[in-house]
Amino acid sequence: MYSQKLYKSIINDRAAHPERLNATFERIEEVCAIVIGERAVSLLEDTAKKIKDKRKPLADEIGNELTMGLGNRCSPMELNSIADLLMDSELTMDEAIDLHEKYKIPVSHLEKDIIPVRGDGAWIIDIHGDAFLDMDSNYSATNLGMSNSEIALGLFNQANQLISMKEDRVHVPRTRFLKEIHQMMPEGLTNFYWQNSGGEAVDKALKIAKAFTQHKGVVAMKGGFHGRTHGAVAVTHEPGFREPFFLDNEEWVHFVDFNDADAVEKLFEEDKARTVIVELVQGEGAGVRPAERSFPKQLEKICDKYGGVLIADEIQSGFGRTAEKKNQWFASVVYGITPQIMTIGKSFGGGYPVTAVVTNKEISQKMKGGYDGSTFGGNPMAMVAALIATRQMREKDLTGNVIQRSKQLMDGFEKLKKEHECLRDFRGLGLMLSLQLRTTEDVAVFQSEIKKHGVKTSLSTDDWVRFLPPLILSESEAAFLLNGINETLKHLSCS
Amino acid sequence: MYSQKLYKSIINDRAAHPERLNATFERIEEVCAIVIGERAVSLLEDTAKKIKDKRKPLADEIGNELTMGLGNRCSPMELNSIADLLMDSELTMDEAIDLHEKYKIPVSHLEKDIIPVRGDGAWIIDIHGDAFLDMDSNYSATNLGMSNSEIALGLFNQANQLISMKEDRVHVPRTRFLKEIHQMMPEGLTNFYWQNSGGEAVDKALKIAKAFTQHKGVVAMKGGFHGRTHGAVAVTHEPGFREPFFLDNEEWVHFVDFNDADAVEKLFEEDKARTVIVELVQGEGAGVRPAERSFPKQLEKICDKYGGVLIADEIQSGFGRTAEKKNQWFASVVYGITPQIMTIGKSFGGGYPVTAVVTNKEISQKMKGGYDGSTFGGNPMAMVAALIATRQMREKDLTGNVIQRSKQLMDGFEKLKKEHECLRDFRGLGLMLSLQLRTTEDVAVFQSEIKKHGVKTSLSTDDWVRFLPPLILSESEAAFLLNGINETLKHLSCS
Repeated sequence: MYSQKLYKSIINDRAAHPERLNATFERIEEVCAIVIGERAVSLLEDTAKKIKDKRKPLADEIGNELTMGLGNRCSPMELNSIADLLMDSELTMDEAIDLHEKYKIPVSHLEKDIIPVRGDGAWIIDIHGDAFLDMDSNYSATNLGMSNSEIALGLFNQANQLISMKEDRVHVPRTRFLKEIHQMMPEGLTNFYWQNSGGEAVDKALKIAKAFTQHKGVVAMKGGFHGRTHGAVAVTHEPGFREPFFLDNEEWVHFVDFNDADAVEKLFEEDKARTVIVELVQGEGAGVRPAERSFPKQLEKICDKYGGVLIADEIQSGFGRTAEKKNQWFASVVYGITPQIMTIGKSFGGGYPVTAVVTNKEISQKMKGGYDGSTFGGNPMAMVAALIATRQMREKDLTGNVIQRSKQLMDGFEKLKKEHECLRDFRGLGLMLSLQLRTTEDVAVFQSEIKKHGVKTSLSTDDWVRFLPPLILSESEAAFLLNGINETLKHLSCS
Repeated sequence: MYSQKLYKSIINDRAAHPERLNATFERIEEVCAIVIGERAVSLLEDTAKKIKDKRKPLADEIGNELTMGLGNRCSPMELNSIADLLMDSELTMDEAIDLHEKYKIPVSHLEKDIIPVRGDGAWIIDIHGDAFLDMDSNYSATNLGMSNSEIALGLFNQANQLISMKEDRVHVPRTRFLKEIHQMMPEGLTNFYWQNSGGEAVDKALKIAKAFTQHKGVVAMKGGFHGRTHGAVAVTHEPGFREPFFLDNEEWVHFVDFNDADAVEKLFEEDKARTVIVELVQGEGAGVRPAERSFPKQLEKICDKYGGVLIADEIQSGFGRTAEKKNQWFASVVYGITPQIMTIGKSFGGGYPVTAVVTNKEISQKMKGGYDGSTFGGNPMAMVAALIATRQMREKDLTGNVIQRSKQLMDGFEKLKKEHECLRDFRGLGLMLSLQLRTTEDVAVFQSEIKKHGVKTSLSTDDWVRFLPPLILSESEAAFLLNGINETLKHLSCS
């Protein structure tokens, strides 16, 4: 048979898929080996002789020949599987890794154990067609999963209409979102300055706090992580993130122990600072570590007393991840505080890069035109993604699901802790969770082994494995996760 | 007649347009006034009595009633125009402005003279249906125009497949772009670190330069503009952008006069700096001001001599805007230099937020994992937009067009200068252009008046009006622009 679907997976129909290229011969070999095993070699050997560069997108004339050749010697089911895998990626895992290694500025560690090509609910499908339950959510950026047909359609419509508009110009998609978002925000946090990344939002929040307090001093927490720009990394505790850039000795930054309100007050008292920045649930620098219950309220009091500014960095914790009750969209609400400034993102774009600084009327009124500026902040596409993503959060009752799944997983962890000595501890809030193993070596083995049980977790801190599942995780998926952890801990106990 | 199109413009079909809301009654009044004038009042008065909140999206049952009422008393052409305007925006200009004013943190000046709702080639259409030739291109972010059906389709497909993936994980859309982008880059600039905004790219470029030189000192230019994060604004000259945030006295930054190579060398000689950052065409802080021809090469020599790093900030100038010859995609190529680091963006995403730090093998090899990190940098959607946008740039021969349109406009400016005393001077490179008028008051009058001739320009510096048209500007559109400028200068001469 001649499969038109197969042909189009090899010779790309650019009108339908402007984002793809023609398949490489190397990828066709890879995919055929997956689907039909050893038969692939003899089946492809004639064409192989003609191909000089196996990684060059195939010329159109080869497409027909390959489609006919495969059609004559594969079953319809095999042809269908080959085409599906080629549509997911027209190039090989090896090529993808090679080009990344060759052309990346290696300022971050390249993760290449799996190459995700498709999202399906809480799952990711990799380049070989294997499915994994996702425990990273791209650092809480894709809480609704890795693909989204409604956002896709909204972005399609918007890119056909008005793809961009600078931050300082009034536009319609932003107005729509402003009509809708307030129902989810804590009372008093009414005013927004839109940004693109988490680090950028923190950097700008610090600028706004300094301009308001007319004081450059900022208190930050040991174990905290806020991003990587000059401003954001200066208040991030890990010295290795600051030293190579001469940002480890900033006179305006003062680190104190997490949960130590007295140390914060002392710095305010000595007039060394008027701003304090905190993650209510530390999510990067210290496993997943929720603040002690009284700490945020103490910070609120100190700021009230000294006319200071409390910045709650809710970039990972916000939009439902830490809910204990229905519609608690922010950790600040869980802890019962109203910070003067909140940084939010990235999840409210459903995967589109969008973040924001949010503050109250008092601080807003003190700001001046010219203080900042942004080309992409709150652009039409970002606002369309945000409108749709936040509506989905409410309609799917995400906070309700977080409460149930969190209980299910915490109960499961409790049980597993009793059964496995190598599980030393667990902690977290909502669906920001972490397990403590015996050693960092344990963590490496755990993360490698659990993939065999269909679970992907890449995040860790020292001897802690971190879990940030998409908030759409279902009951049966949470059970699947617990089973995977159980099997992995069994393996770990024996090693 | 009963217009189904009108009904759908009032009561939104969410399945088709998840990014829209139902129309407000206020908007229906506004649109009817535009299309049918005074007849609108009596036509809508019965319904008006039933509406409590004119800015609330209409309830579904009202939609039918309004569609019937309008259908009975308007011509098919009128109904069609009403529906088109409602589809462009279902809410009013007044509401859009009110919500922006109420809920924005006013760190930038709100531009509200027109509200763009649609892009069409080099044109923007505003909320009232008026068309303007765009001279801003969102600070060079939308060089291909404000809407793009091919990018729209690519983003739709990608969001349906894999909407996001963190910077440190290998993925397919980024691999595709890495296969294609090198043909446009200057030789030697092979390695990329993807970011989202211009300021972020500059901030990270500075980090990379400091880590490589193991020296914190940076020379920056008077009149330069590089962005707003702590790092980017520290090297931006305008004191008002730095002082409110205590960033005006950074010991690691040294400002020198633009084009003063001796001053740069002195700072290197005295070991005060090992990095110099420059826009080859200053685009914000000083009208549009190209570097003197010899300056960039002098900087290159100084960096070679002292083992320093030259950062060319090509965020506005890159991807063809300053071409003098075909396929000169960067100002660095025009000036005949190869900087160690280049910052690129925003235009290569065709409107999608994407930027990058680009550098050579030598610097890349000195970088270490853990130096930085990014959730959204080089995400699948950004890379899809970039793949399609850069292919369009080549296929549309954008540099060829820039050369022709630049000559046409420069010749026109020369002629206008002879005819109008109030046009004191002009300068620029490629399609980064500016006109000098007599005073800043002249600039305000000019920008207001030229709108009446169908041209929108929002950018200015002191007595300079800046022009950054989309690079797809046609010959007849350039003539239309020159005519608009001529008419506006006539008006100015009389005032």
